Amino acid sequence: MSNKQIKLASRPTGIPTADNFSFEESPIPSAKDGEVVIRHEYISLDPAMRGWMNDTRSYIPPVQIGEVMRAGAVGQIVESKLDGYEKGEYVMAWTGVQQYGTSGAENLFKVDPNLMPLPRYLGTMGMPGFTAYFGLLEVGQPKEGETILVSGGAGAVGSVVGQIGKLKGCRVVGIAGGAEKCAYLTDELGFDAAIDYKSTENLHKDIKAKCPDGVDVYFDNVGGEMLDAVLTRINRHARIVICGAISQYNSPKIYGPSNYLSLLVNRARMEGFVVFDYSKDYGKAAMQMAQWTMAGQLKSREHVVDGIENFHSALLKLFSGDKLGKLVLKV
Amino acid sequence: MSNKQIKLASRPTGIPTADNFSFEESPIPSAKDGEVVIRHEYISLDPAMRGWMNDTRSYIPPVQIGEVMRAGAVGQIVESKLDGYEKGEYVMAWTGVQQYGTSGAENLFKVDPNLMPLPRYLGTMGMPGFTAYFGLLEVGQPKEGETILVSGGAGAVGSVVGQIGKLKGCRVVGIAGGAEKCAYLTDELGFDAAIDYKSTENLHKDIKAKCPDGVDVYFDNVGGEMLDAVLTRINRHARIVICGAISQYNSPKIYGPSNYLSLLVNRARMEGFVVFDYSKDYGKAAMQMAQWTMAGQLKSREHVVDGIENFHSALLKLFSGDKLGKLVLKV
Repeated sequence: MSNKQIKLASRPTGIPTADNFSFEESPIPSAKDGEVVIRHEYISLDPAMRGWMNDTRSYIPPVQIGEVMRAGAVGQIVESKLDGYEKGEYVMAWTGVQQYGTSGAENLFKVDPNLMPLPRYLGTMGMPGFTAYFGLLEVGQPKEGETILVSGGAGAVGSVVGQIGKLKGCRVVGIAGGAEKCAYLTDELGFDAAIDYKSTENLHKDIKAKCPDGVDVYFDNVGGEMLDAVLTRINRHARIVICGAISQYNSPKIYGPSNYLSLLVNRARMEGFVVFDYSKDYGKAAMQMAQWTMAGQLKSREHVVDGIENFHSALLKLFSGDKLGKLVLKV
Repeated sequence: MSNKQIKLASRPTGIPTADNFSFEESPIPSAKDGEVVIRHEYISLDPAMRGWMNDTRSYIPPVQIGEVMRAGAVGQIVESKLDGYEKGEYVMAWTGVQQYGTSGAENLFKVDPNLMPLPRYLGTMGMPGFTAYFGLLEVGQPKEGETILVSGGAGAVGSVVGQIGKLKGCRVVGIAGGAEKCAYLTDELGFDAAIDYKSTENLHKDIKAKCPDGVDVYFDNVGGEMLDAVLTRINRHARIVICGAISQYNSPKIYGPSNYLSLLVNRARMEGFVVFDYSKDYGKAAMQMAQWTMAGQLKSREHVVDGIENFHSALLKLFSGDKLGKLVLKV
């Protein structure tokens, strides 16, 4: 009876290599007072994890060398010494890339496997979904009839951003890599248009063609030259929501948007946010998104990779884009 | 009896050269119905003029080749066919780099030469002052006790930003070029500290030392590497006001701020604005700033260059920084 774990063995430079991580086994933990032990069923793989591997000051401390890699997970409580949490209940917790984790009450959320498939609590009904919800509605402030452009449009965050945008009466355009993802956006999720950045000859022209009235809200998960191209097409008082920059996370030098003076010309703003700041309102967002899901207005896909030992190869799919929807590891 | 004029002869690439402008003489204009003729006494030289020379879509159309170079000016009405404006009155208008200009009622403002020296209506009591007032208060939203950092701190805009910041109870730090300007900021204008970017060995370290509690509002007139350095020192929920980027106006390629992801980590925003959007409130701002000036709380300096024929060499002082305070041409 052992607990398989993935630990950070060394800090990556560029794309993480297999030997940046170590695969270890340790005894299954037991609960201290005020704790539960969770047997993980699914572990979340998110672009933000790349940042947590760097030894830099950020919105959250870096993962230390030798620590279990930080990740969200869903699973079943197998032991509880925490009031209000019973053995057998399902929870979402920040218990990392391992088979079993322990958690106190903080950031421990009960989930219902009968309401939604478990992996969804790591996607649309979890951190990526809340990121889309608060980032778009609180920071992006979309108004009916406006045009929303979202990069990483087929990803766990972007796909929710676009669908909420449609529910709010906006024209929604997604940028994604490949014909399959673009078809998913327009045919299955109801986006008004999609731009395939992998096959485009001129991203500027494609943005102009697909957003003929300009861009009012740009929700950016990608950064780099894509952000720079969008800056040339923003409208007056546009809002650029800086959610991430996955194109830059493995770069030695971040690409700075040289068209940022478009913010001046267009009286526009570029604003960052961190979803954890909205944690007191997660419940409200979850209820709203559950309603939309039940009504068939908010669709989700999860891309499941089997086996904790495949952590590294699965992680790379975040950067290659070789997945569709929310990427999770099945334990 | 002729009207000396400076016209745009060709579009500059990089720093404007003398032959980008032509010096011409034409007859003194006469007023059509609804117009006044103004004999200019002072003409404003502003960084924004460099942008108006480029043939690019912006917040205002470019100056056309062969047109009198656009500029603000103050002078005396010598002929009026416009109701409410009398011969002999003084006005500020957008009548360009010439000795005499004609204007309709739009953007024509009466000024009182007994209240303030005339050049001040092109500086603190004119567009640069309003730019500082609305950019800081409306976009920057400073709160008492916060730290404001302003680049181009000794310039027409920056010097007013800093003084208004002090009036609002903030700690104010200015970035300027040279010991004389820095002394002007701290000794004469009451800034809490100044950073001499021309003599600094490490701008990051200087910003950290002079803004020990971080930067809450950065009012940026300069752009480039300076903006990138400040991005590493901003606080949570910081506001970066994009007013201009004089370090970049003559560059073939704008420097993009590679530290922009600091906006995400710090839940901060970068926002541009154009002063003309606030024109309906100029009167309110002018009264407030006149009161502060009378009370000795808002000081100004003008750097006067004599002779319209010296337009080109005077213009270059904007980019070299070889001037202190608001730069004007005396006609």
